[in-house]
Amino acid sequence: MPGISDRGVKMPASPIRKLVPLANQAKERGVKVYHLNIGQPDLPTPEVGIQAIRNIDRKILEYSPSEGIASLRQKLVGYYAKFNINVSAEEIIITTGGSEAVLFAFLACLDPGDEIIVPEPAYANYMAFAISAGAIIKTIPTTIEEGFSLPHVDKFEELITERTKGILICNPNNPTGYLYTQKEMNQIRDLVKKYDLFLFSDEVYREFCYTGAPYISAFHLEGIEDNVVLIDSVSKRYSECGIRIGALISKNKTVRDSVMKFCQARLSPPLIGQICAEASLDAPDDYLLNTYNEYVERRKFLIDGLNRIPGCYSPIPMGAFYTVAKLPVDDADKFCAWCLEHFEYEGQTVFMAPASGFYTTPGIGRNEVRIAYVLKKEDLANALIVLQKALEAYPERTI
Amino acid sequence: MPGISDRGVKMPASPIRKLVPLANQAKERGVKVYHLNIGQPDLPTPEVGIQAIRNIDRKILEYSPSEGIASLRQKLVGYYAKFNINVSAEEIIITTGGSEAVLFAFLACLDPGDEIIVPEPAYANYMAFAISAGAIIKTIPTTIEEGFSLPHVDKFEELITERTKGILICNPNNPTGYLYTQKEMNQIRDLVKKYDLFLFSDEVYREFCYTGAPYISAFHLEGIEDNVVLIDSVSKRYSECGIRIGALISKNKTVRDSVMKFCQARLSPPLIGQICAEASLDAPDDYLLNTYNEYVERRKFLIDGLNRIPGCYSPIPMGAFYTVAKLPVDDADKFCAWCLEHFEYEGQTVFMAPASGFYTTPGIGRNEVRIAYVLKKEDLANALIVLQKALEAYPERTI
Repeated sequence: MPGISDRGVKMPASPIRKLVPLANQAKERGVKVYHLNIGQPDLPTPEVGIQAIRNIDRKILEYSPSEGIASLRQKLVGYYAKFNINVSAEEIIITTGGSEAVLFAFLACLDPGDEIIVPEPAYANYMAFAISAGAIIKTIPTTIEEGFSLPHVDKFEELITERTKGILICNPNNPTGYLYTQKEMNQIRDLVKKYDLFLFSDEVYREFCYTGAPYISAFHLEGIEDNVVLIDSVSKRYSECGIRIGALISKNKTVRDSVMKFCQARLSPPLIGQICAEASLDAPDDYLLNTYNEYVERRKFLIDGLNRIPGCYSPIPMGAFYTVAKLPVDDADKFCAWCLEHFEYEGQTVFMAPASGFYTTPGIGRNEVRIAYVLKKEDLANALIVLQKALEAYPERTI
Repeated sequence: MPGISDRGVKMPASPIRKLVPLANQAKERGVKVYHLNIGQPDLPTPEVGIQAIRNIDRKILEYSPSEGIASLRQKLVGYYAKFNINVSAEEIIITTGGSEAVLFAFLACLDPGDEIIVPEPAYANYMAFAISAGAIIKTIPTTIEEGFSLPHVDKFEELITERTKGILICNPNNPTGYLYTQKEMNQIRDLVKKYDLFLFSDEVYREFCYTGAPYISAFHLEGIEDNVVLIDSVSKRYSECGIRIGALISKNKTVRDSVMKFCQARLSPPLIGQICAEASLDAPDDYLLNTYNEYVERRKFLIDGLNRIPGCYSPIPMGAFYTVAKLPVDDADKFCAWCLEHFEYEGQTVFMAPASGFYTTPGIGRNEVRIAYVLKKEDLANALIVLQKALEAYPERTI
């Protein structure tokens, strides 16, 4: 048989994925598994969104426009305006999830061999999309000790070569929950301007900023409007990961025209998802407020709990619904697998994401895990007890 | 600003797309435009599919598995068995439309510079997906004079180089409606075997074969089971283009594992679409029979009508719902634009797809158009009158 592609070989198999069979086996043994590993909120989708689906009154489920339904794009203009992101409907392209927005941004802007700089730990699939496009991700390490703040601008400049074509940030950050400060964003702006780079900014967690510090969109940065490619998704804010509706926003017509060719090739984003997303934008104010309050509470509860476990440390995430925590183990990959394979406490165990999947620099973050606080408080409480017991029982515990 | 990617520059802008603004302007002038240009059936989606959407009873619209919902994949096994395509659920990967299946097949199997051979005229977006993957399409011309049958095997072998990695066919064919014969399929099988190639086989129109000649799936060919990557979609057979549900089917585990990495990166195919597609598989027998009968009638009506217009010629398509017809003009791009821009008959005009978008060999097919018979008979009747009148009025008519 003919061989697969090199890029198929190179595509990373996420450490989380490798653990899924172990989690399934644990469930088959009757063990209750707390899923702290995935950003799938347990909070309800807005009722208006579900209702819009239930009210579908069409005879034919036709293609929608390649750029997305006009009324959804128009309504998003108002949504972004609430965050002082001033974009027009024609600057918004609807994509099949934020995932497709990242892929098309890379395909449209980056050639094979082009490089982008990404602070790590970073969402693992950026790497997968870069490999799909033949682009190269150069990571700039941030550390748990420094709360995952950005390193000095020098560190960025050290990575810049002739092939550097962009910087990618996720703000608020998955996996760290870090929220970039005005100073950091200005530093990025200056770099983007100085080296004429694209700024790919994934801002899907903007609803979830907890510290009173401002959320600074890439579109708030002056003088680089044409360089910004904003990635968005309704998945997280409306708990509708399954409908696969995201957006790519750019004020740069050349970029949009390029992206649109990829959009036209795949014909259209999902019709029903768009109808649901559009309706969800009308969710009552208390929907997002309740969601927000719930995450605030869970965050406090989780982080307090983690920091009470001997040998554990988590910074206080400022946004999103993840934290990266340090555990008293040498190899979190092994520990996470052990929890699923060999441990249970009162019939329960925990599934955490080893942080190794979010780093590309070899050897760093080996004792870290990403924990998503997408479970209700009682479950988080139990998960924390299980984690503490697991660490007590773990034969290779370091401290 | 930084420049876009070379591939963004190279992505073909389809001649159909260029005509869309002209069609919109015609509509704004109050002209009725008959859309013969696009494969969007006007037939209803199965009621059971729509009803499944209306009955959604979930609180959260969650991610579905990256490979698709298990029950849908299982049900498809039975569907394919009806066509003597014997595959297991694990060999079926659900994709976001047939489009994503083509893109992922290319990304997973082809490296930049790898070549695939495609008979032309061919679906224009294959080229777009090849460019996305950095692969090169080498086309092998088929001609309207020979009814778009495949040329002798020698012509294929002339195109084979060290970089040739696969052959792609669409059967029944878009845009020609051609259905490959057993002899042609055997010839392809032998080539695939001899040179150890992938056979990418797009079979989304299998329900629509009109001549009694058998539909021969790539999976019916013996001895190349591991080489076949089948592309499928529910869009056309259930008139549900908007839900974006397709499938990639392979018996080759290495290929599936590679494809799955791309699937995992994009997280999941659309949830609601999968629910609709699964329910649609239970559409009563008379749904597909009525659809089939409708296309049989439209086909006869359209082809008879086209061949009665002086100077026009269309072969009789054996499948799908398109035909490629020859018109008495030098440049169908110009003629199609003229119809939208400068012509109307009793307040009506026609939007046809210039065939140039389906050829890559320069200069061939310039006087051809693709016509989709996805409109009801009365509309086709009017469209045929409009086309005849347009050809009579066209100042650059050749004969």
